Amino acid sequence: MLGVLGGMGPLASADFMRQLTLLTRAERDQDHVPAVLWSDPRVPDRTAARLGQAEDPLPMLMRGIRGLEQAGCRAVAIPCNTAHGWFDAMQAATTLPILHIVDAAREELERLEVGEGPIGLMGTAGTLAMGLYQGRIGRECLVPEAALMDSHVSLGIALVKANRVREAYAPLAEAARILRGRGARAVVLGCTEIPLGIAAGEALEFPVVDTVAALARAAIRHVGYASA
Amino acid sequence: MLGVLGGMGPLASADFMRQLTLLTRAERDQDHVPAVLWSDPRVPDRTAARLGQAEDPLPMLMRGIRGLEQAGCRAVAIPCNTAHGWFDAMQAATTLPILHIVDAAREELERLEVGEGPIGLMGTAGTLAMGLYQGRIGRECLVPEAALMDSHVSLGIALVKANRVREAYAPLAEAARILRGRGARAVVLGCTEIPLGIAAGEALEFPVVDTVAALARAAIRHVGYASA
Repeated sequence: MLGVLGGMGPLASADFMRQLTLLTRAERDQDHVPAVLWSDPRVPDRTAARLGQAEDPLPMLMRGIRGLEQAGCRAVAIPCNTAHGWFDAMQAATTLPILHIVDAAREELERLEVGEGPIGLMGTAGTLAMGLYQGRIGRECLVPEAALMDSHVSLGIALVKANRVREAYAPLAEAARILRGRGARAVVLGCTEIPLGIAAGEALEFPVVDTVAALARAAIRHVGYASA
Repeated sequence: MLGVLGGMGPLASADFMRQLTLLTRAERDQDHVPAVLWSDPRVPDRTAARLGQAEDPLPMLMRGIRGLEQAGCRAVAIPCNTAHGWFDAMQAATTLPILHIVDAAREELERLEVGEGPIGLMGTAGTLAMGLYQGRIGRECLVPEAALMDSHVSLGIALVKANRVREAYAPLAEAARILRGRGARAVVLGCTEIPLGIAAGEALEFPVVDTVAALARAAIRHVGYASA
C-alpha cells in the first residue's frame, strides 16, 4: 500500500488521491492503487516554521509517518512541497522510502519535453527561502520577487487553503505569466495549492508542472502500476 | 480524527475528502477536519458479492476498520452505499460509531426542503436488491427498471470506476430524468460514483442528493466542526 502524508493542505491531499486514481490505468475498482492517506491539517504551518514563527512541524510529520508504517504502507508520498524542507530528517527516521516531490517535478519536465533554459518556480515563501528546488531540479529557477510573492503567490495559496479556490486563479495565473514573460520555458507550480487555483480558470498558454499530478505519477510508477 | 473507509471506488473516496474540505468552514489548514482515509480498492465487488458472484467483502472491510481504529480514529464514514449492506456486521464488530449513508441522505432531503412525495433512487444493483434505502429513508422510492439499470445506471457506474467520467454523464443523467418523469420529487444518487458522473455535465433541473456530499456534511457535524 502507498502511504500518503497529507493534510498540508487538505484540498491538495484530496486532489492527490483524485490524480492517483485518474492517472492509473484501470477498468474497475480492483485495478487501482491501494493507499492510506493520513490527512492531519493540524501540522504547524511549514512556511511560518521555516521563518521561525511557528513550532517545528517535524514531530507531527513523524506521527503521520508512524501511522503509515503501522498501516502497512511500503512507500510514502507527501503532497506538500514545503514539508520537503524536513525530508532528510523524515527519511533518516523511517525505513520506508519517501518519494521526493522535486524529483517528480524534474521527471515531469522531461515528460513534457520542456527544452533547455530557465524555468519559473512558484511556491511558498518557505519553499523559495530554503532553496528546495534550486540545485535539485537541475535548471536555473526564476522566482517571483518579494513584492509579487506577497501580492499574488502567497495570497493565492492562502485563498485555496480557505476554500476560496476560484478567487485564487487571477493572482496565481498572473504571477505565472510574469515568470513566463521573464523567459521561463515552463513554470513549476511548486506548492500543491497552486495547481488547484490554476485549474479554476482558463488554462495557461505555456507548459506548467502540476506537482500534485507529478507526484501522483511518480507514486504510481513506484508501486508498480501503469499510469494512463 | 475521522476515519474514512474508502477505495470503493477510489475516485469517490477522493471526492469525499474534497467535499469534507470544501464543506468545512475554514480559513487555514489548521481549521480543517483531521482524517485518515483507508483506500483499499481491492475490497471484493459489493454488488457481485450480494448477487453471490464474488467473495464476501466483510473481511477486507474489517481490515480497514481495524486500521482506522489503530490510527486513533473516533468515528467512521464509508463513502460507498453498497458497502452499507454489511453495516450491521461492521458496527457489531467495532466500538467506533459508523455513520450511515442513508441517514445522511435523509438529512440532505430535509436540508434541501424536498416536499412530500416519492423520491427517485439510483444505485448499484446490489444496493437496490438489498433494499438499503427503502424503509430507512422514510419515503416511497422509485427505482429504475431492470432494463434501465443495465443500459444506463450500471453502465454509468462502471464508466466512472474505469476513469471514463465524462462518458458516464449521459446515461446517468438520462436515468435520473426518467425517474423525475415518473414523479420523483428529488433523485437520490445512491452510489458514490453517480454524483461524479452527474457533475461531469450540465446540472440537472431538479433536486438531487449527492450522497458523497451528504456523508461529508454528516461527518463534519459528527466530529464537531462547522459546515460551510
